[in-house]
Amino acid sequence: MNPAESKAVAVVLLSGGLDSATAAAWALREGYSLVALSFDYGQRHRIELDCAKKIASSLGISDHVILPVDLRAFGGSALVDPDIDVPKGRTSDDMATEIPETYVPARNTIFLSLALAMAETRSAESIVLGVNAIDYSGYPDCRPEYLDAFRTVARLATKASVSGHPIQILAPLISLSKKDIIQLGLQLRVNFALTNSCYDPKPSGQPCNECDSCTLRAEGFASAGVIDPLLVKNCEDFDANQ
Amino acid sequence: MNPAESKAVAVVLLSGGLDSATAAAWALREGYSLVALSFDYGQRHRIELDCAKKIASSLGISDHVILPVDLRAFGGSALVDPDIDVPKGRTSDDMATEIPETYVPARNTIFLSLALAMAETRSAESIVLGVNAIDYSGYPDCRPEYLDAFRTVARLATKASVSGHPIQILAPLISLSKKDIIQLGLQLRVNFALTNSCYDPKPSGQPCNECDSCTLRAEGFASAGVIDPLLVKNCEDFDANQ
Repeated sequence: MNPAESKAVAVVLLSGGLDSATAAAWALREGYSLVALSFDYGQRHRIELDCAKKIASSLGISDHVILPVDLRAFGGSALVDPDIDVPKGRTSDDMATEIPETYVPARNTIFLSLALAMAETRSAESIVLGVNAIDYSGYPDCRPEYLDAFRTVARLATKASVSGHPIQILAPLISLSKKDIIQLGLQLRVNFALTNSCYDPKPSGQPCNECDSCTLRAEGFASAGVIDPLLVKNCEDFDANQ
Repeated sequence: MNPAESKAVAVVLLSGGLDSATAAAWALREGYSLVALSFDYGQRHRIELDCAKKIASSLGISDHVILPVDLRAFGGSALVDPDIDVPKGRTSDDMATEIPETYVPARNTIFLSLALAMAETRSAESIVLGVNAIDYSGYPDCRPEYLDAFRTVARLATKASVSGHPIQILAPLISLSKKDIIQLGLQLRVNFALTNSCYDPKPSGQPCNECDSCTLRAEGFASAGVIDPLLVKNCEDFDANQ
């Protein structure tokens, strides 16, 4: 048997951001063979899908499904409704006390449920996601108690679970700070220049540097004492275009 | 205020089958204002979407989203993979002991998670679904314990729940026999001639009369001592075409 075939398979939810790229690299280090799932859900930061493709490629993941699920059909979030502005300039205190307009109703439940389907069809042992409950925007579906509830669903929902092989939900970054995540990613040689965090990128693809996600990323790199390689890449791209 | 505006809203998952049509009629009797959600998931029995539209219309539901979520991207089920045959001629004993090839991985979790998103954007109080654990094909995601687990997810996953308004999951048919469901539907004046149950309809749209779902429907109408109005309609259609 090819050694690669004997590895346990995991589905990784790959958004194109730095958390999920780090979670994927972590799972590879843990010995999993990875398949990846991303969603074209009508997000205004569609650039993240190009990032997800590049990250999958850089990690050697060949089975990468980008599934269209158009959440604009429901609306209700700045990330899928162009008429709702992405909040800018929020502080960490704001993020700790108020769920912002970028919250997409039930998004993680939708993503996890589709990952569960992919996991079952790929005979995967686990689902890996880069969700984080420390430096985050306060979304309810990023909390540990939410994840535990979904674990119970995953334990009961599938044919695989009835056959004695329930699918595990692994969230290796859940209690790490952004600084810790960045340091872990650097240890694992994640190419952060390939990632996008911005919710509201400019038409050029440059980050806005004002949304929650840009703020958390900047604070994370600053705490880690590292220059964000995306900034370096963007400066190089800018210079190359002059 | 218009009296209709004061009603609590519920999202009903409308498949086009007789169970969900009955669950919808039940919810209307309970006083809910309904919005409906159906899925174009690549099912071979796409005819059910036409049925869902007609049922929504017959029940006066004007907000009806038919969301494309192409589960053929994952495969692994006779309902979405034309290379896997729909099992035919199974008995009730078979259904009680073996999960068939018509099982779609994580389907109810996917459907409920998207219903949760729609419920939140519509400020709905509840989600109503016609799931049933008595006369069914043995799918793991139709069991009461599975539904209870998803209820916990729904209680934790949304911004609405954090605001003190968790979304309820109502499964009024969960412990009814198919006979009971048919009798309830008839009491509620559901037009069963508009519904489709067959997993593998003929090109004409006629049911195969051999799949689990056709078998359960036929046994249900026989137990209720009622002629299936779909058979009457099909005979009338046949006569009209001669």
